[in-house]
Amino acid sequence: MHINLLLMDSKNSLKKTDFSLTDVISIYDFSKKDILAVLKRAEEIDSMTPMQKSKLLENKIVASMFFEPSTRTRLSFETAIQALGGKVIGFAEAGITSAKKGETFSDTIKVMSNYADLLVMRHPLSGTARLAAEVSLKPILNGGDGSNQHPTQTLLDLYTIKKFVGKLDNLKIGFVGDLKYGRTVHSLATALTHFNATQYYISPESLKMPKHITEEVQEKSKVYETEDIEKFIPEVDVLYMTRIQKERFPDEIEYNKVKNAYILTKAMLVNAKKEMKVMHPLPRVNEISTDVDDTPHAIYFQQTAAGIPVREALLDLLSKVKK
Amino acid sequence: MHINLLLMDSKNSLKKTDFSLTDVISIYDFSKKDILAVLKRAEEIDSMTPMQKSKLLENKIVASMFFEPSTRTRLSFETAIQALGGKVIGFAEAGITSAKKGETFSDTIKVMSNYADLLVMRHPLSGTARLAAEVSLKPILNGGDGSNQHPTQTLLDLYTIKKFVGKLDNLKIGFVGDLKYGRTVHSLATALTHFNATQYYISPESLKMPKHITEEVQEKSKVYETEDIEKFIPEVDVLYMTRIQKERFPDEIEYNKVKNAYILTKAMLVNAKKEMKVMHPLPRVNEISTDVDDTPHAIYFQQTAAGIPVREALLDLLSKVKK
Amino acid sequence: MHINLLLMDSKNSLKKTDFSLTDVISIYDFSKKDILAVLKRAEEIDSMTPMQKSKLLENKIVASMFFEPSTRTRLSFETAIQALGGKVIGFAEAGITSAKKGETFSDTIKVMSNYADLLVMRHPLSGTARLAAEVSLKPILNGGDGSNQHPTQTLLDLYTIKKFVGKLDNLKIGFVGDLKYGRTVHSLATALTHFNATQYYISPESLKMPKHITEEVQEKSKVYETEDIEKFIPEVDVLYMTRIQKERFPDEIEYNKVKNAYILTKAMLVNAKKEMKVMHPLPRVNEISTDVDDTPHAIYFQQTAAGIPVREALLDLLSKVKK
Repeated sequence: MHINLLLMDSKNSLKKTDFSLTDVISIYDFSKKDILAVLKRAEEIDSMTPMQKSKLLENKIVASMFFEPSTRTRLSFETAIQALGGKVIGFAEAGITSAKKGETFSDTIKVMSNYADLLVMRHPLSGTARLAAEVSLKPILNGGDGSNQHPTQTLLDLYTIKKFVGKLDNLKIGFVGDLKYGRTVHSLATALTHFNATQYYISPESLKMPKHITEEVQEKSKVYETEDIEKFIPEVDVLYMTRIQKERFPDEIEYNKVKNAYILTKAMLVNAKKEMKVMHPLPRVNEISTDVDDTPHAIYFQQTAAGIPVREALLDLLSKVKK
Repeated sequence: MHINLLLMDSKNSLKKTDFSLTDVISIYDFSKKDILAVLKRAEEIDSMTPMQKSKLLENKIVASMFFEPSTRTRLSFETAIQALGGKVIGFAEAGITSAKKGETFSDTIKVMSNYADLLVMRHPLSGTARLAAEVSLKPILNGGDGSNQHPTQTLLDLYTIKKFVGKLDNLKIGFVGDLKYGRTVHSLATALTHFNATQYYISPESLKMPKHITEEVQEKSKVYETEDIEKFIPEVDVLYMTRIQKERFPDEIEYNKVKNAYILTKAMLVNAKKEMKVMHPLPRVNEISTDVDDTPHAIYFQQTAAGIPVREALLDLLSKVKK
Repeated sequence: MHINLLLMDSKNSLKKTDFSLTDVISIYDFSKKDILAVLKRAEEIDSMTPMQKSKLLENKIVASMFFEPSTRTRLSFETAIQALGGKVIGFAEAGITSAKKGETFSDTIKVMSNYADLLVMRHPLSGTARLAAEVSLKPILNGGDGSNQHPTQTLLDLYTIKKFVGKLDNLKIGFVGDLKYGRTVHSLATALTHFNATQYYISPESLKMPKHITEEVQEKSKVYETEDIEKFIPEVDVLYMTRIQKERFPDEIEYNKVKNAYILTKAMLVNAKKEMKVMHPLPRVNEISTDVDDTPHAIYFQQTAAGIPVREALLDLLSKVKK
């Protein structure tokens, strides 16, 4: 009885108006209020007992549709679904047999939305999540569509900052590495404009933050750019590292020039603020030396763990949506 | 307490003699009484709350063994199993490692039947489901074995007709497209002889219903054949569309002649009875124009959804079998 | 209430000191006391009702990470996890996408141990389970690492002997077939030295038990060696058969010489003790004729079934470990 009352309280802690979305497709659809509603719900869920959590999606079926493999993201979602008491159906990679027989993507989604109460999807093509949301009878939760959107990554990044830096407002954050192609970085940089972040873009010339993002951020926040990875380390509250992927470069010579230039080592952190945190969306290759792992700055494994309560919050919020 | 009593009532609503099978291998094994028992149980389950349903396979393990991929059928079964509270183990495609090491199919089934309480299987070879039933310690539920049998499709078709047309007896039903190779059509046409259906076979000459089926149906029911897709539309209560598959044709010229001849469009439905329903086992390619989707005739998405309660009913009935 | 009390009793039936391990990596890490603790717990779990069992891992997430496919072992673990009420996340074969992007194995394990409460793994490379245990935040349960270790097989073999022969001490056991490469045989032979078993090694000269194993066993037990499969059949309590794999031989001529020499048939069992049991880790190819299956000597299918309570016991014991 006590448990049920607690659950009712926590369920009711958000007013319906706090979260306005019926599908989670892009972080750009989120108002500041929506973002805060997700983070608040994630905190609430994170503080529940396993038994309390296990009631939130009880007797719900969630489809986990990975049209492109992404083991990490898939397992994180399937952990979240099951921790909330939901059941998973799905597939881990392309090759859905109906599609091979010539079925349209719309028909596939319509059928799946007749089986499941909520649909998580990842797809190699941009725009597919939006299309799915239009035809689906049930809410769509986008786990990444091509180079386009990966809203749960951005929300877990924000949740991690709030939890480990202790605040979201007036942050000083440096983004390091491939700022040109990384959707993770673009989304987080944009989302942080809601919170008056000072942003430092640290990358080789050939991998600079795209102009349209820089301009958009600059309308609301201060932006600094540099090629020098060490220059702003003493300034920032957060250093957000990213991988530099070989396949982004037209030739190997160009790649070799920069590949080792943006590697963070423990030695480079001597002048960092004591409370400065190093983040990384993972997987890393060599861009953070393992000697950083044992410093109090490293929070990238906690960051990946934060994917669970954030995805749980989104699943919970969407499970209450009537489309 | 109230819930438990309800469940006991619904569990007891079928007398043991109503369902006579210990495995579900072929629709031809079903007496009329067996068919009606499944449909009745599906209706009962469909009207339960999620919580009530979730007790029916509680603490049971069900193997979902897809020796051939079929994403749609697999996810439909895995939805049904989990909605009833059962747990799924299994594989989604051939390549079971013991078979690669030289294990016989019989040994594989014996081992699996030591792990699970009930075995769902799909296999590319005809007759494998029957063989599995012979060696398995636990009930086998056939999700399709080659070109042979797919009994759950037939039962969900019957359930859909009963639900959306409102009756199974004295139906007028047209089958359109590839009537030569479609096991779906053969099984449904035969099953409907229990219910005095008048049947219309609408196909190109090269894809006519096989003679042995036509003759078997004619013993009990009236049959009409035509190549003209529009001829019987005003007559029928149900129009059952099927895909015409390119790989069925010896050459492309032959295929091109018929491929666009059996496409149903909204315009063709103007003279249909107001209550006439269009069905399709899905996936469709282009044989039903999408402009039909929004008409009240279209029930093919509801038909696929009907796979859930029908498979739930079969799982529930088989879970009570002692082999 | 009654159920809860029962569960508390059975949970408390082992003193903490009876099981000393925080990870299950190798059977060589097990003391005799550890082995007996697992077997005892397996017996207890085997005698529980499904409902009682389903509380043991309630609300726990278990990762089932198969870096190498092994359908049998995977499904056995996934049955055990779910029968205890746990939830499964995981993958069935190599190709984890983060590894493809260049992530180290250590990082992969660290991330997974942030998602799950307990990690089952199988990997083609020797030593990976030990490495995983070092970096994981949560207990590791080794489901086989290369040619190295497969401790759950040894434990289920011991459990089977105890259950069907009725004792573990002073056993007479014959090992037949490929004794050179079979890790199953090496592990079981070594583990049985705790129980004073007389051991008979029956193999072609080219597949003899390695000298270091024979010597280790001889320190505590009597050992006999022969090439004659029939010689010791009247002596033994257990005949443990294994596959002779073609790929072990340098050339086909060598393989053809021995491949049919170690096939057990019903006729060969006429002089066996009435209570003698034939075991095999499965899958078999042709090394046990199917006419043995129906004799009271055959327990290889019961042996594979014993994998469930033994794996359940290990999962249960490890779920209580604090790393």
